[in-house]
Amino acid sequence: MSRPQRERIFSGQRPTGPLHVGHLIGALQSWVRLQDEYECFWGIVDWHMLTTHYEDTHELDDNIIDMAATWLGCGIDPERSTILIQSQVKQHAELALLLGMVSPLGELMRLSTYKDQLENLKDKNINTYGFLGYPVLQTADIAAYRATRVPVGEDQVEHIEKAREFVRKFNNLYGRGKQPLLEPQAMLSPTPRLLGVDGRKMSKSYDNAINLSDSPKTILKKVNTMVTDPQRVRRNDPGDPEVCSVFAYHRIFTPEEDVEQIAQDCRTAAIGCGDCKRRCAERLNALVAPTREGRARWLERRSDIEEILAAGNAHAREVTEETLQGVREAVGLR
Amino acid sequence: MSRPQRERIFSGQRPTGPLHVGHLIGALQSWVRLQDEYECFWGIVDWHMLTTHYEDTHELDDNIIDMAATWLGCGIDPERSTILIQSQVKQHAELALLLGMVSPLGELMRLSTYKDQLENLKDKNINTYGFLGYPVLQTADIAAYRATRVPVGEDQVEHIEKAREFVRKFNNLYGRGKQPLLEPQAMLSPTPRLLGVDGRKMSKSYDNAINLSDSPKTILKKVNTMVTDPQRVRRNDPGDPEVCSVFAYHRIFTPEEDVEQIAQDCRTAAIGCGDCKRRCAERLNALVAPTREGRARWLERRSDIEEILAAGNAHAREVTEETLQGVREAVGLR
Repeated sequence: MSRPQRERIFSGQRPTGPLHVGHLIGALQSWVRLQDEYECFWGIVDWHMLTTHYEDTHELDDNIIDMAATWLGCGIDPERSTILIQSQVKQHAELALLLGMVSPLGELMRLSTYKDQLENLKDKNINTYGFLGYPVLQTADIAAYRATRVPVGEDQVEHIEKAREFVRKFNNLYGRGKQPLLEPQAMLSPTPRLLGVDGRKMSKSYDNAINLSDSPKTILKKVNTMVTDPQRVRRNDPGDPEVCSVFAYHRIFTPEEDVEQIAQDCRTAAIGCGDCKRRCAERLNALVAPTREGRARWLERRSDIEEILAAGNAHAREVTEETLQGVREAVGLR
Repeated sequence: MSRPQRERIFSGQRPTGPLHVGHLIGALQSWVRLQDEYECFWGIVDWHMLTTHYEDTHELDDNIIDMAATWLGCGIDPERSTILIQSQVKQHAELALLLGMVSPLGELMRLSTYKDQLENLKDKNINTYGFLGYPVLQTADIAAYRATRVPVGEDQVEHIEKAREFVRKFNNLYGRGKQPLLEPQAMLSPTPRLLGVDGRKMSKSYDNAINLSDSPKTILKKVNTMVTDPQRVRRNDPGDPEVCSVFAYHRIFTPEEDVEQIAQDCRTAAIGCGDCKRRCAERLNALVAPTREGRARWLERRSDIEEILAAGNAHAREVTEETLQGVREAVGLR
């Protein structure tokens, strides 16, 4: 296993609650694949969670364990990847502090994600110094590992661009031709836009997500609440799949060859909405089941999870400390 | 020496270059006195220096040693006080990160010191995230030691007020009736307003300071550049001490009983400006000499300084780690 020249990857998720299918198809599935080719660091980024959820932290520790169990359950392999808890690797905080010194305030305030979230999370009182600094901390997360690749969703591309800028500025100021930090690049996996069962963005806070821990029964119950073509009142009315939220799920979760058949069966009323939902729930269940079962098995091995996390944190500290030593020296600190 | 109930003090200075008489009469003289009554932590706050001087760090390490030697030279006693280097006590960064999550952005932007410095340090490009966060980091510096008293100058009172607010907000959110952090109070020592030899604020950047390392000759040379009553052209012209910058120094550095005599001698032309300046320089030298000599002796014991700093950092880490353990637990972090 000594291929020291492999590029490093860092990515993370915020332990805000149960993971859902969006996390799986948007991130975890590709993380599992990336383990073969890259040296991977996956962060349970609890400090990031605080930027928006600082008023509500009582489930944080349970959420961390749940996240680790889910990651392990879906195929993140601690033999090949490093799983770490951000707050247990203090080097993230130190590097964020140093990067903050060179990060222009205006750049942070102009980020569209910043403005959007201020608007969208009005109930959360996130007009704080920490929330504004999210992209600085994120830059530190990545740069501390000298990671060059960051698998992210579309909405994070702007942040990775900012991370590149901050790193470049830091290197220009302190590098004297060397690169104490490396400029990361976003790895965009083209992920289909997945909505919640109520048609809004899939999110824990809307209670509209298919969770990776959901039983087949729960999945079916959730899918049954989904809105189909409102014009199709009776079983024998023909339907329009293009306006049906269940069909949008089929597009994502059902093999392509079956999708057209379903559309046709809907248009000809050959299939009823109840049957169609059941088939959708089956597809979802087939997707979720391995992770659900893996997660459940890991949750019975809590002390193994703790060991994996402890080893991951320790390795992460070593790797980041090496980076930080170069950084401190470059800045002129002790 | 076991009086564990003593209140704790934290204060610091930024290692930006040679210390001057302003530092001595504004801070160090009272620090030396406070050692008897309080458990004192004195920080060489190098991270703070970066908030304004991040573009110019090549003398940082020399400045740290110079600062330590000057402090020791003027009577800071490592047997009774803890001298630490901020960047060597990572707990400051971790606590700053956590406090940042609850620190309202608007509060930071409205601080008058913030607006003033943005205006005054236009050449320094301090429109950065780090500079805006100065008061958050300062709160962390103090709160990490659970220090309740902070000897500061007038200009810092606003910051300490802010520190109280941030700590209060943190305790309200996470304390559940306990106090993971303590609210600090400013200790204002009434310090006379001291200008540089050119009449502007005494500052290294204006090159107008009487440094604590200045020889008697250098001091006299600097005092000789000071502007006296411009109406007093010839030796025998009577002068007006109220408009003379040298007389302003006498007010601060000459015993009260002699000050009136000097004023009278100026008004009656009994003393010339040259003599008056020489007497002023003598006073300054008498003030500076013990620290200058102490500093020089310490600079010959560089390895002792390093040992004192290492011991101070280690003790500071222990004390702050204890605070941080309570803080992490209160927040719900591991």
